[in-house]
Amino acid sequence: MKVGYIGLGIMGRPMAANLLKAGYEVCVWARRPESLEPLKAAGATVAASPAELAGQVDVVFTNVSDTADVEAVLLGENGVIHGARPGLIVVDHSTIAAGASRRMAEKLAGQGIQMLDVPVSGGEQGAIDGTLTLMVGGEAEALEKVRPLLEVVGGTITHVGGPGAGQIAKTCNQMIVAQSLQAIGEAFTLAEAADVDPARVREALLGGFAYSRILEVHGQRMLDKNYRPGFKARLHRKDMGIALQTAAELGVATPGSAVATQFINALVGQDMGELDSSALVEMLRRLNKG
Amino acid sequence: MKVGYIGLGIMGRPMAANLLKAGYEVCVWARRPESLEPLKAAGATVAASPAELAGQVDVVFTNVSDTADVEAVLLGENGVIHGARPGLIVVDHSTIAAGASRRMAEKLAGQGIQMLDVPVSGGEQGAIDGTLTLMVGGEAEALEKVRPLLEVVGGTITHVGGPGAGQIAKTCNQMIVAQSLQAIGEAFTLAEAADVDPARVREALLGGFAYSRILEVHGQRMLDKNYRPGFKARLHRKDMGIALQTAAELGVATPGSAVATQFINALVGQDMGELDSSALVEMLRRLNKG
Repeated sequence: MKVGYIGLGIMGRPMAANLLKAGYEVCVWARRPESLEPLKAAGATVAASPAELAGQVDVVFTNVSDTADVEAVLLGENGVIHGARPGLIVVDHSTIAAGASRRMAEKLAGQGIQMLDVPVSGGEQGAIDGTLTLMVGGEAEALEKVRPLLEVVGGTITHVGGPGAGQIAKTCNQMIVAQSLQAIGEAFTLAEAADVDPARVREALLGGFAYSRILEVHGQRMLDKNYRPGFKARLHRKDMGIALQTAAELGVATPGSAVATQFINALVGQDMGELDSSALVEMLRRLNKG
Repeated sequence: MKVGYIGLGIMGRPMAANLLKAGYEVCVWARRPESLEPLKAAGATVAASPAELAGQVDVVFTNVSDTADVEAVLLGENGVIHGARPGLIVVDHSTIAAGASRRMAEKLAGQGIQMLDVPVSGGEQGAIDGTLTLMVGGEAEALEKVRPLLEVVGGTITHVGGPGAGQIAKTCNQMIVAQSLQAIGEAFTLAEAADVDPARVREALLGGFAYSRILEVHGQRMLDKNYRPGFKARLHRKDMGIALQTAAELGVATPGSAVATQFINALVGQDMGELDSSALVEMLRRLNKG
């Protein structure tokens, strides 16, 4: 099984490298030629365009920034759709809106190409270690064909449902993480204002129903004011934009997610977009302590 | 060490019973005489008033509904303050506002009585099993004196800080739990509106950063629509009232907690106050699916 990889950023580079290490032939393409170098050095071949890449492989992975980028490499000029052999499977690891993902899957299906939306969580370290959580939307039969490849890059693979379902799960993940950061941030600033040590509050709460991985990991970051990412605030802002856009498209009210998004927006606006999104607590601290 | 117990409701009754079982002499008082019977049958003596009870014991536990009740039994006519011997320690297990708790502790201190605020989490089952999480505010030295008693009723004891700090921790706990219910409720209703199975979403998310005990336990309740309490919505409403009152007193903005409170309010308003507060998701389902 020959593999194509498009998008060699912070996440795509280690994921493609893990496929090479596992013994797969990998052909790569990226918008920025310099990002190809580490993969070439590791044994990957390079295609001149997404279309040319698609003509040589059985599976194409895409791992790019946003909806427009996915559309460009799949459906645009010299896109995958123009070079693919029938039976190609596209695995899109990008985090984009579920609606757009569904529409692309439909267009590709018209050309005999199957698309799986497989957004990931677990960050750069998870990508390097091959322990990412993978949320899969699309046909079960396509998933089974690429499962050995997904097992190389991820630790947990959940087939959530049909096309777009992986993106919906990722959106739910980001909504829950954002509101957890908001809730813990509010709790800590309330404790600080009451002259109570938030570290002791966190400790008291870890053993009960308020336990979450966010309280454990990001709660500690908030106490240490250590905002080395982790997951950057500007990417969380992008994902919450997708969440609120998806909610609007579906006509669903998500007021708690909307509130948390405001504080992530403010964080980016205060030039802290490159920090871990747990820095959200600093916006609450500014608001509450001047 | 002789123990007095005031307030023998759902939580107080099993907690007092555990103290009796552990071999302590227990003297009880309750507003409703019928609530005394099971404790009398188990060997407790009965006092005619909180003041009379206080005169016979070394430690008084209070476990009543709200601030007014705590004030009445501690500081009111025939209250603990009027019968206590110097050196008495009051352990208040009620969940009330931190500010009011601090003010009561100060008044009692004027009479040589030490007060610890020790709200609990873990519900009726935790009270029966003696596995409650105890959040302690007050003097360390008073805590050490009553620690053997607290170890009978609780599994985890955290000394959070000075007077009121236990109540602040409990408030933080309730804020985080409410927003977790809100976040998961929003995620599930979004998934439902997108024709994605929320059970699959929950499964995909449990392995990642969105993991929380609320997602595990209450997320499953939301899927099963099983709202047998657990923790009743009307009590969660009371506690969120305390949270927002405390935030207002301290001049702290807690917008996410405020949003979640609105949905708990609506739940009580829809005659679902006796259900587990995870029924909050039903308010989002009504809003989002008509």
